[in-house]
Amino acid sequence: MRFTIDRETFLKSLRLVAKPVPAKAYIASLVFIKLVLDGNGLTLVGSGETIAISTLIPFNFNEKEVIRNYKEGAILVQGKYLVDIISKLSGQEINFEVLDNSVVEITDERSSFQLNSAQVEEYPEYDFNEAGIEFKINAKELILLVEQTSFAAAIRENRPMLTALNITGQGNQITAVALDSARYASKTITINNEANFIANISAKNINEIVRSFEENQEITVVVVGEKKMMFKFNNTTIASNLLNGEYPNVKNIVPKNFNYSLEVNAQEFLSAIDRVSLLSNEKSTVRLIMSNEEVQVLSTTSEVGSANEKINNFQFNGDRLEILFNGGFVIDAIRALKSDDVVLNFIAEMKPFVIKNPKDENIIQLITPVRA
Amino acid sequence: MRFTIDRETFLKSLRLVAKPVPAKAYIASLVFIKLVLDGNGLTLVGSGETIAISTLIPFNFNEKEVIRNYKEGAILVQGKYLVDIISKLSGQEINFEVLDNSVVEITDERSSFQLNSAQVEEYPEYDFNEAGIEFKINAKELILLVEQTSFAAAIRENRPMLTALNITGQGNQITAVALDSARYASKTITINNEANFIANISAKNINEIVRSFEENQEITVVVVGEKKMMFKFNNTTIASNLLNGEYPNVKNIVPKNFNYSLEVNAQEFLSAIDRVSLLSNEKSTVRLIMSNEEVQVLSTTSEVGSANEKINNFQFNGDRLEILFNGGFVIDAIRALKSDDVVLNFIAEMKPFVIKNPKDENIIQLITPVRA
Repeated sequence: MRFTIDRETFLKSLRLVAKPVPAKAYIASLVFIKLVLDGNGLTLVGSGETIAISTLIPFNFNEKEVIRNYKEGAILVQGKYLVDIISKLSGQEINFEVLDNSVVEITDERSSFQLNSAQVEEYPEYDFNEAGIEFKINAKELILLVEQTSFAAAIRENRPMLTALNITGQGNQITAVALDSARYASKTITINNEANFIANISAKNINEIVRSFEENQEITVVVVGEKKMMFKFNNTTIASNLLNGEYPNVKNIVPKNFNYSLEVNAQEFLSAIDRVSLLSNEKSTVRLIMSNEEVQVLSTTSEVGSANEKINNFQFNGDRLEILFNGGFVIDAIRALKSDDVVLNFIAEMKPFVIKNPKDENIIQLITPVRA
Repeated sequence: MRFTIDRETFLKSLRLVAKPVPAKAYIASLVFIKLVLDGNGLTLVGSGETIAISTLIPFNFNEKEVIRNYKEGAILVQGKYLVDIISKLSGQEINFEVLDNSVVEITDERSSFQLNSAQVEEYPEYDFNEAGIEFKINAKELILLVEQTSFAAAIRENRPMLTALNITGQGNQITAVALDSARYASKTITINNEANFIANISAKNINEIVRSFEENQEITVVVVGEKKMMFKFNNTTIASNLLNGEYPNVKNIVPKNFNYSLEVNAQEFLSAIDRVSLLSNEKSTVRLIMSNEEVQVLSTTSEVGSANEKINNFQFNGDRLEILFNGGFVIDAIRALKSDDVVLNFIAEMKPFVIKNPKDENIIQLITPVRA
């Protein structure tokens, strides 16, 4: 196996597939990146315990020769070292050659690296071409769907399913739901074709995956049963395992009828909560007091002091209401709405309340109050 | 005590004095910042275990009224909270008022914070006006003196004195020396007046201190016996305790006669060492092989592989020589020289070698080789 390759192109693809590659792993072969040179070009594969990425560098790209002077073959090279070496080399082109004794030699005009390598048979098999329920979606829309919901998933949880983003396809609607013990976020979007599926993907994985997208790409999503979800774009496939088991039933979690409603300017309300949070207790408790005359945000830490903010622009309907919540949760929810104004709907002091964009019913943030 | 103050000015000075202020401390009162308003303006004082900073905000600055509507007094406020609050407030001016019950109220048009405060008597006394040996130096020159030497000091050491930068004044020359078990750096500069002193200041402290300087300031340095060193500029004084004890005798540490000399382009040599260091062992060992025909830099890690770099531009005098060193130490030393070309002078394989700027004899880097 041998090739001469444009360094920048090689590096960009290596960095992509190296993302999930661990420095050390239970499955020892995961520390490698697999390189396969065949009639299509150079395919790179990198994997973690639950994510696998494959990308193809074609021989020519944008009418420019990217790979030349090649001989077909396949090899495993330690991912961390390969990325570091290619990023530090100074040449415009890199020569890569497998020597007889399972050593890979990487050279440019100045430098010469010899890396111990391993045989491709040691690497776990992964089928990036498995068939499943398929739909297409604009990268920007998928990034938003994930950003606006996944933050509400549990970080660590006795119930691992709560660390998932629950994505369901029904007809031509895709809904993403995340929740933990004190908050819930959901968003529904419409796609062009029908796709019926349920996928519980680790919120951490899907966040990592969407970071690899460029905003204007069209992504083809493939859901393989309840075990695997793949994202295909350009010459790349990113695949994630799905979580096993049943997601909590969230059908009736969002109340329909409310007794109070508060509309505020998102930025003013955010800044006020952010400031009073400086003096909130270790549970980040913030107090919101609302009446037709006045809306105030307050906090107290007994040892340090107290903070008080008046909200200037508001529209409140209902009797006086006082409610305590986790300031960080409300900040996350309002930021996720990406809206100039937000509406908060309350039932009573100790009932979960809803935060919405008044102009978009498709995204809902729900928060459980804190006890005094 | 009461004042209305320009927020940006207040914040800049608060951030300066808050730098050494710990979040928690053995001496409980160190978590506070001391604020004193008197006929001169508002003085802020913040301290850590070994650094104290005092700065004065005058009533007017650049013909602009900075402090108004004031009443003299003094108070202690928790440093971390005060900085956070002033940085998050949105008003152009801040009102600060000590209320009857030792509570400080901080307000702007939107926000109101009440902070528990303490009486100034609880704060440690510190004399920022103590007399001593005094000299003036340009900030840029002092920053360079520290940057080019202090990195060689020990981080943690059984002998605490090795964590110091040893600064001595003799006639109109100032010399800074740092060393640990395997390297040594020194630089001598000339000042305008005479100053005879020895000061062993924690390398960590002096690095923190010079970061507060702006490049064109003139700094007045005051050395008070062997116990304290103060840096005065604008309306600010930064004081650091000195380390007790005697610094190692470094008089004859730098050899005078050498058997080999290698001159290289600093950037080419640095890049080569940097690249081969990717495959150096856990001790960062790099091998340098020199002859009249060829200069090479090499490294090996048995499990991963090996690297080899040819140096294209060099001038070597002497027989063939092979030497092993810590790659990171040589990189630090060459960077510190800030020179286009560097000269390495060797005596023998296992003897300490010198790295110098061929155009500047006042700065010397010395490194002990590593055993094979």
